[in-house]
Amino acid sequence: MSTDNNNNNNSKYVPGLEGIIGAQTAISMVDGANGRLVYQGYVIADLAEEMSFEEVAFLLWEGRLPNRSELEALSAELGGSRELTDAARDTLAALPVDTDPMDALRSVVSVQGVEHRLAKPTRPLAIHATASFPTILATFYRRQKDLEPVEPRRDLGHAANYLYMMNGKEASPEIVRALNTYLVLLADHGMNASTFTARVVASTESDLISCLVGAIGALKGPAHGGAPSAVIEQIEQIGTADNAKPWMRDARKRGVRFMGFGHRVYRVYDPRAKILKEMCERMNPKFYALARAVEETALTILHEEHPERPQSTNVEFYSAGVLQAIGLPKEYFTPTFAVSRVAGWSAHVLEQAAHNRIIRPQSEYIGPEPRKPVPLAERG
Amino acid sequence: MSTDNNNNNNSKYVPGLEGIIGAQTAISMVDGANGRLVYQGYVIADLAEEMSFEEVAFLLWEGRLPNRSELEALSAELGGSRELTDAARDTLAALPVDTDPMDALRSVVSVQGVEHRLAKPTRPLAIHATASFPTILATFYRRQKDLEPVEPRRDLGHAANYLYMMNGKEASPEIVRALNTYLVLLADHGMNASTFTARVVASTESDLISCLVGAIGALKGPAHGGAPSAVIEQIEQIGTADNAKPWMRDARKRGVRFMGFGHRVYRVYDPRAKILKEMCERMNPKFYALARAVEETALTILHEEHPERPQSTNVEFYSAGVLQAIGLPKEYFTPTFAVSRVAGWSAHVLEQAAHNRIIRPQSEYIGPEPRKPVPLAERG
Repeated sequence: MSTDNNNNNNSKYVPGLEGIIGAQTAISMVDGANGRLVYQGYVIADLAEEMSFEEVAFLLWEGRLPNRSELEALSAELGGSRELTDAARDTLAALPVDTDPMDALRSVVSVQGVEHRLAKPTRPLAIHATASFPTILATFYRRQKDLEPVEPRRDLGHAANYLYMMNGKEASPEIVRALNTYLVLLADHGMNASTFTARVVASTESDLISCLVGAIGALKGPAHGGAPSAVIEQIEQIGTADNAKPWMRDARKRGVRFMGFGHRVYRVYDPRAKILKEMCERMNPKFYALARAVEETALTILHEEHPERPQSTNVEFYSAGVLQAIGLPKEYFTPTFAVSRVAGWSAHVLEQAAHNRIIRPQSEYIGPEPRKPVPLAERG
Repeated sequence: MSTDNNNNNNSKYVPGLEGIIGAQTAISMVDGANGRLVYQGYVIADLAEEMSFEEVAFLLWEGRLPNRSELEALSAELGGSRELTDAARDTLAALPVDTDPMDALRSVVSVQGVEHRLAKPTRPLAIHATASFPTILATFYRRQKDLEPVEPRRDLGHAANYLYMMNGKEASPEIVRALNTYLVLLADHGMNASTFTARVVASTESDLISCLVGAIGALKGPAHGGAPSAVIEQIEQIGTADNAKPWMRDARKRGVRFMGFGHRVYRVYDPRAKILKEMCERMNPKFYALARAVEETALTILHEEHPERPQSTNVEFYSAGVLQAIGLPKEYFTPTFAVSRVAGWSAHVLEQAAHNRIIRPQSEYIGPEPRKPVPLAERG
């Protein structure tokens, strides 16, 4: 069948663009063969427990780590950009109270960022957008719980302020540190589907908020960021370590998919999952014991079924246990992923805008050959 | 430099994915070499002035033309889905009055479609979303003009109802017919950037509204759907046919881009532009005389500069004159493009969801080689 044909090419359709290079980027590298994730020349294991989310956001946006005064300036800018616009507040208040928090985030980010005239993506706009995500989520969460909203505090870091606004009180340093590590680990990850969405939107020379709103929609999908709450629901259904084997053997017969396993890129253990697994063991031992039994059983069964496939536990699996230990409700796991990933999305939008060419692939037409339409009166 | 490497491949980075096949589709074919656009096996010239937008939407969604009772059922369903939710109304009322109508559309479509639980994309949801676009735009337009909103009417067709809600009175049959033709012509167009955005979002198994909101953001970009108002602004600046040559020669020296020319796929005259050009000549002769002079001058200058490149006038050029003759304000040209294209976007989302594989290309890393981070205290 023919394709959109502007030039003679003999490209073959590859479902999912697997193996096709969608962009060049300096922002991150997913080294699947060696189980490494690199942000702008730093291996994730060197950043995860040493750096604040603010430092890593600076790194992603600027390509280098900030010095102290640059970090203070960024922290002040983030702290000063946490408030919502009147329109965003009114929209939050108007949403049905049982709205999926990802839909609330998508809608209120859109409203918070409306423009009068098209503006080019800039780093200040990236900072403002990044600052707004925790406020939107915490405000909506408290509305769902029928609690008064808590105003953001400028003196708290990004992770600490998010938890403060959710809970109405400061979290312990250990919990803040754990959330910070989670936010650092998830901030970027090569050409995943939401980042790719953001870059496609950016490639039309659209504005930053349009890119982020598209990315939020992509992250929502269960084949991408929508998995962590499904992981915890599955583990809760299994209930006990002893029940893992019988439940999962039976589930498999019914064709149930195991949540939290498999990744297109990693062929060895995901380096983020490794760090989160250690954190989960330390912070949430009860969940960990059960999760370990589920993981072992899942990997055994999956290996029996497909011995040729590399097996890997993905980042969603243990992040569920960590986010639970941090005290976040499971409906807010995927939105919290967005709180982190917005740093990477906006870095990619800035990079795309700086070296732009519209991302417009071709399609292969598989419909019928052209024929004359039958008039309405003669249609059966 | 290395890439996300899950398997050994030697794919080379192609900027903008030019020539890469992003999807297989039966929905439309852009036959650039022959200047044909085909919807599900029908050439656009056979549909443009014969079919209602409703028939064409059915065709895109179902793969065949409706019979009379199917068309009546679809029209009734669209007519019954035009009202906004309370949350959507409140959001519209909360937006700053000078908001870009594309941002208003992006935000209110998002709010109108919030869900409690993730729903799979379905045709009824596509119908509901398609029905809501004119209501959102007309309501916001009237708010900008400080006019009372006009409730949608079930007894009017899609094009007629849109104009009725914008203007508060019924448009003439000729004007309705012209808008209908515009809506048919723009309803789908292969793997353009907004449609591709919608498919990438759909590929994560996200919901229909997330896909559409992403697509609206992509369409907004001036390299995609954001051009028509720029076309009219440029033509207005030129002012008279006599001024075309001197103005454009001078503009070119200053590096000004001519708006409404060039397309990645078409190598001959865009079949949509051909139909719109004839409509423009008939409906808007004053604009047409000026636009013809601008077109001729632009093509002459562009040919002098790049004789090797095929020159083509794109769909935005004469659509600006048609939409002006229809009476739409220029800020609503791109949003009206969305009123049409939502039919194609939603058809692509349904198609992607039916044969899904996550769209996750690789990236090529061009950042620094991994090194150890310098602690904050030691950074210069």
